[in-house]
Amino acid sequence: MSHIRTTTPQVIDLLIDARWIATVESDLVLTNHAVAVDQGRILAILPSGEAHARFSPGKQVNLQDHILIPGLINLHTHAAMTLMRGLADDLPLMDWLQKHIWPAEAAHMSAQFVYDGTRLACAEMLKGGITCFNDMYFYPEAAAAAASEAGMRAMLGIIALEFPTPYASDADDYLNKGLAVREAWLKDPLIGFCLAPHAPYTVSDSTFDRILTLSEQMNLPVHCHIHETRQEIEDSLTQHQRRPLERLHQLGQLGPNFIGVHAVHLDDNELQLLASTGCNIAHCPTSNLKLASGFAPVARMRQLGINVGLGTDGAASNNRLDLFGEMRLASLLAKGLTGDASALPAHEILRMVTLNAANALGLGKEIGSISPGKSADLCAVDLGSLEMRPCFDPVSHLVNVAGRDSVSHVWVAGKCCVEHKTLLKNNQNNLDSAIALWQNALEVCRLP
Amino acid sequence: MSHIRTTTPQVIDLLIDARWIATVESDLVLTNHAVAVDQGRILAILPSGEAHARFSPGKQVNLQDHILIPGLINLHTHAAMTLMRGLADDLPLMDWLQKHIWPAEAAHMSAQFVYDGTRLACAEMLKGGITCFNDMYFYPEAAAAAASEAGMRAMLGIIALEFPTPYASDADDYLNKGLAVREAWLKDPLIGFCLAPHAPYTVSDSTFDRILTLSEQMNLPVHCHIHETRQEIEDSLTQHQRRPLERLHQLGQLGPNFIGVHAVHLDDNELQLLASTGCNIAHCPTSNLKLASGFAPVARMRQLGINVGLGTDGAASNNRLDLFGEMRLASLLAKGLTGDASALPAHEILRMVTLNAANALGLGKEIGSISPGKSADLCAVDLGSLEMRPCFDPVSHLVNVAGRDSVSHVWVAGKCCVEHKTLLKNNQNNLDSAIALWQNALEVCRLP
Repeated sequence: MSHIRTTTPQVIDLLIDARWIATVESDLVLTNHAVAVDQGRILAILPSGEAHARFSPGKQVNLQDHILIPGLINLHTHAAMTLMRGLADDLPLMDWLQKHIWPAEAAHMSAQFVYDGTRLACAEMLKGGITCFNDMYFYPEAAAAAASEAGMRAMLGIIALEFPTPYASDADDYLNKGLAVREAWLKDPLIGFCLAPHAPYTVSDSTFDRILTLSEQMNLPVHCHIHETRQEIEDSLTQHQRRPLERLHQLGQLGPNFIGVHAVHLDDNELQLLASTGCNIAHCPTSNLKLASGFAPVARMRQLGINVGLGTDGAASNNRLDLFGEMRLASLLAKGLTGDASALPAHEILRMVTLNAANALGLGKEIGSISPGKSADLCAVDLGSLEMRPCFDPVSHLVNVAGRDSVSHVWVAGKCCVEHKTLLKNNQNNLDSAIALWQNALEVCRLP
Repeated sequence: MSHIRTTTPQVIDLLIDARWIATVESDLVLTNHAVAVDQGRILAILPSGEAHARFSPGKQVNLQDHILIPGLINLHTHAAMTLMRGLADDLPLMDWLQKHIWPAEAAHMSAQFVYDGTRLACAEMLKGGITCFNDMYFYPEAAAAAASEAGMRAMLGIIALEFPTPYASDADDYLNKGLAVREAWLKDPLIGFCLAPHAPYTVSDSTFDRILTLSEQMNLPVHCHIHETRQEIEDSLTQHQRRPLERLHQLGQLGPNFIGVHAVHLDDNELQLLASTGCNIAHCPTSNLKLASGFAPVARMRQLGINVGLGTDGAASNNRLDLFGEMRLASLLAKGLTGDASALPAHEILRMVTLNAANALGLGKEIGSISPGKSADLCAVDLGSLEMRPCFDPVSHLVNVAGRDSVSHVWVAGKCCVEHKTLLKNNQNNLDSAIALWQNALEVCRLP
């Protein structure tokens, strides 16, 4: 018998050492700590020295100049629309929509279009540190297949609108098709669903009623465009004699399950209503400016305690699926609009793209922070390059200096998707040729 | 004698074939053309096939997925301030300036500080496609040495203000020191100078008088902060009983040699005055938002025919010296502010960072477009990556999709500075250790 007690190190899948770790559980940034990962889950966060004594990892990653953060969550996108990236820029909203986007969709939208477009979107998002996206588009079965192949987490929209498209004929048809897709993917831990009534101006009261019932029965979030443009509000006043948000409130839609997208034009009563009902907002600053919709009052929303996440919107109105760009723009706009340079500081912006978005999606116990028991959805950002020097505050650097090109490693549920800036599951040749074919097809329909 | 006339190909230094070329001389984008370069100058722009028959280049570069554009011009920066990148973020302007930036400058500013900071800035800017910067800082001799070593074009400020700093004691001392530096660099083709009165609130009437005389004698541009904040305007009303721009007008400062920086808060009379006097504006959108100064009325400026370029400002108020970011933000803000999604279209934004900026600096005959006889200051942007696919309009992609990380090649006066995203003249080790020393020094002064 020896007097020296030796503890056998615990065998685990992965140990990640990082110069800095922002867990997002608090604003504290850990220095020279490690994250232990096993079976897709975060086991512990502890000082590196201790971690190496305690664990025997199958794989080690040492991130000497990096900050490790939770995987980013894109709270609003139309992933398949990457195929229409830059199809029609610098155009007024109605020209953009009616003369370009809708005709292109009418001519080309199909399950194959959605599959290829979502594959491209997943590749772009993963490389940029996004591990989960909240999608709203047609053929969610094709988007689910694309996300699953990429190893990415997705919340897919069970979309509903009243008018027919190649995908479905009427609101019930949309909902029934979407619900069937949900059934088929129920056992997949990475694929989830939201009910996705497109917008108050495309969805009837009775459809909203059915959506509310479904949301309550299945505890599903409801993902809906809201108050994006002034026109939408005026049309609602004409058609329904009330503003869209008031109408949704009367229909019982507003609550902690509701994710309102855009929320640009709101009076203070409406902001109070969003706060008191516990609604979540997906702020999409690039899209709101590119389509000239306006400036969402995000600093005020945060003052009122409204839960706000960030979304890229689709690539036709952005044109990047880049949450680093949205972080930076959200921070800058809040400062410019309030006249207060301390508005929306960096830690709060980081919460928006991680824990706030997870909470909005009802996934706050599973993702959104680096916390023992949660899924190991992680993103490493290299702060060592020349453009990043010097670095006094790594979280401020995430928002104000880093870009998505600084993302070096990405894990989803413990599986490495991006390593040293390279996509691992990259069916690039096949994807390249698919994009080329779609580009040719869309180019033809684009010409006058 | 043969009936076949063979022309001996002309020996030249460099031939660059590119999928697309945006010369900026017009909005036309050339496809599959080449740029012939000899002795640092652009010799011809012609179809690739023709170019290879006519020229025998010492070096060939084939840019299959790229757009070749003029080197970008940063119309306003304080290059050395890269050493204070992110030193104090998310703070109100006066706290930022008085509690952090000024004390740090007072404690550390020196020729060595400016030399090291400008070296870092030049490396960052060159990698991001910027071939020329208009600088305003202390110790321009150190900035000139750094830019010259990097092979970069620079317009350095002969700075003037009334209060003493480690660099100079009073306005005449500043001016005399700056003028002596100009004398020393007169024969260098890449290093030029602007007179740089810091701002109306730091420069007296008599100093402005001397600057006007010097500007007229030497035909030098005058580079001056103007109407950045509301406070500055109110202080001027108190002290001078007029708004800063009115005061400068009465002092005879406004004219085609004048480059006003920021120009955020302007009434329509002032905009008309800027237009009628032929002033140039350096628009710095990121800095204006980060410091909560406000939104410059750029779309209105362009309507009035005011010549507008873009600037990054210093890295302490941005925190990137990245003109791709400024292009994108300028385009988005103009759309959001006017409510018109067609405001400041991509071609116009590209002119702002090239020909407009060159004209503002009095360098319109030398740089700013790809034109025979001009200096070969060129930038190639790779539009072939996955994040850039598909591509329907390469100039729209420059503004809306590309980032500085897409810059693959950069030439200044025909000399390659960046090749395949790698800085060629990279004294990285030495620079790395210099930055580390400055970071330590500044970190100490940053702690409470």
